[in-house]
Amino acid sequence: MTTHPPKHARYAYRGPVPHEVIKTVEFTLPPLQPGEARVAVLAAPVNPSDILTLTGEYGLLPPLPAVGGNEGVGRVEEIAGEPNGLEVGDVVLLPVGCGTWSTHLHLPVKTLVPLPHDVDPVQLSMLTVNPPTALLMLSEFVELQPGDWVIQNAANSAVGGYLAQLAKRRGINVINVVRRESAIEAVWAAGGEHVLVDAEDLPKRVRDAVGEVHVRLAVDCVGGVHTEHLARCLAAGGTLVNYGSMSGERCMISPRYFVFNDLTLRGFWLSQWYKRAAAERRRAVFAELAGLVADGTLHARVQDHYSIDHVADAVRAAHAGARSGKIIIEPNGPPRAAI
Amino acid sequence: MTTHPPKHARYAYRGPVPHEVIKTVEFTLPPLQPGEARVAVLAAPVNPSDILTLTGEYGLLPPLPAVGGNEGVGRVEEIAGEPNGLEVGDVVLLPVGCGTWSTHLHLPVKTLVPLPHDVDPVQLSMLTVNPPTALLMLSEFVELQPGDWVIQNAANSAVGGYLAQLAKRRGINVINVVRRESAIEAVWAAGGEHVLVDAEDLPKRVRDAVGEVHVRLAVDCVGGVHTEHLARCLAAGGTLVNYGSMSGERCMISPRYFVFNDLTLRGFWLSQWYKRAAAERRRAVFAELAGLVADGTLHARVQDHYSIDHVADAVRAAHAGARSGKIIIEPNGPPRAAI
Repeated sequence: MTTHPPKHARYAYRGPVPHEVIKTVEFTLPPLQPGEARVAVLAAPVNPSDILTLTGEYGLLPPLPAVGGNEGVGRVEEIAGEPNGLEVGDVVLLPVGCGTWSTHLHLPVKTLVPLPHDVDPVQLSMLTVNPPTALLMLSEFVELQPGDWVIQNAANSAVGGYLAQLAKRRGINVINVVRRESAIEAVWAAGGEHVLVDAEDLPKRVRDAVGEVHVRLAVDCVGGVHTEHLARCLAAGGTLVNYGSMSGERCMISPRYFVFNDLTLRGFWLSQWYKRAAAERRRAVFAELAGLVADGTLHARVQDHYSIDHVADAVRAAHAGARSGKIIIEPNGPPRAAI
Repeated sequence: MTTHPPKHARYAYRGPVPHEVIKTVEFTLPPLQPGEARVAVLAAPVNPSDILTLTGEYGLLPPLPAVGGNEGVGRVEEIAGEPNGLEVGDVVLLPVGCGTWSTHLHLPVKTLVPLPHDVDPVQLSMLTVNPPTALLMLSEFVELQPGDWVIQNAANSAVGGYLAQLAKRRGINVINVVRRESAIEAVWAAGGEHVLVDAEDLPKRVRDAVGEVHVRLAVDCVGGVHTEHLARCLAAGGTLVNYGSMSGERCMISPRYFVFNDLTLRGFWLSQWYKRAAAERRRAVFAELAGLVADGTLHARVQDHYSIDHVADAVRAAHAGARSGKIIIEPNGPPRAAI
């Protein structure tokens, strides 16, 4: 066991400035119970949903006080009772929602999924939230076939990158839309093709770039009039799926696209899918995604790494716009780039 | 045949001020061909879709020049060739889209549907556009059962009145939302219950008025933030159907209602339904609606009647806000209220 006292990043209230409500504090681990393992957290990302949980805008809010962080990976340090196939030293996927911004956690052995040792734990730590969001938005709304066309904005986000990577693997064409020229390079680097900067004339830009194609699915994470820009690129009868609002604005769309062009607007929320999907389906999705992260097919860019003592800085960085990649907390460091 | 020359209201171009583009002019009826009937138009409404056709904002625009008016009823004046069961003097439903703002039309006998003589032709003239819109929005999106709840704005519109009347007949509860106090009385008069004035706190007003009910369908014809007000009244998984924008604004809805509350937003366009529905289904819908207009179950309030010479005034009145009912053109007068 570590000689330092355990620490975690907790919040006792919610508020509009998320980095002001999250505090790193020392805490005391209770005695390890039979059937539990002590896990040292190796890496945990700051997701947009973590930020919305701190501000109170998320759809599900844990009781207060709470520890931040919904996903991550750790290394098993000690097992009490039956190991159930687990070994000390194993790298494991932590169960979703367990408060991963923590140096150490005591968790039931049966909730821990062993992962390959030779894969970057940082990439594995982002497995349970963004990749299934991308995978399911590509599969749960429209029956896409190889050769079909999809358009997405927020293409330089982690979900955007995963979506482009997953679509390419299935032979689906993606038009990637970003809001600034400086984000184009990053989408190319993540494997995205057909990258366009959003504007009022987006449908024309799409035609100029790829010709007259029949776009069946649009994926929106920006909101505002940007939702309408995507809507105008959809073929009649197409589906628009929203999963967030990076602009902070309402989705704004003229009724004409619903009435005259028969569009459907829906939302995607992974928490709902977790609740509704059969256990077998969940396992299949995660087995597929873990394999794709392990073989490098799926990867997300990382902007910066933070130690447990700098979680507030990590949250501030994640909340800022125009990021070049994900913000990662490495509770047991050493962070590769300290603040 | 009338001794006066036939007149119709035509437009040679489209423009933002609809009453400026529509002109009443004399025209020459061509010789009646075998299989045709000459019909004197008794009544034809000015629908919102007629206005949007004049401004160029509608989803389907006829080639120019064109005669205004999409629906109406007439009286048969002469038949050439086989009467096919039709008789001179019959009141008939005119085929949709034939340019009904006209004193006289030559139409194929087989396109004319005889109607009862003892029913107000003005009520019958509104049969083919607004009542099926109301009926189909209640039936094509959500499987509603008696006792279910629906919310609609624009409740004082003709479609709103028909929707309330059709829902009541099926035992479906409707929450009727209007944008001004002065419109409440008209909704009650049309048979609507639970009438509320729209506001930011609409969900609370709904709870105060009818308690905690599970609203499964919301019908929007206003747009702007008013669309979100309806969305916030829907139960999780509910469907929002838009069929127009009386505010002239885009639909504005926070993504949270799609993401966290699993709402679906769709549009309804009767023209699409006409194209897609089987002939048998169309006949069944119109037979049902004609019976309900004939027995008085379905009725729309009328604000004013105009002669063929005052179609531009009729269009201006229909385009103005805060109407108390439909604008009707009676091409062969005498209009009950002249300008």
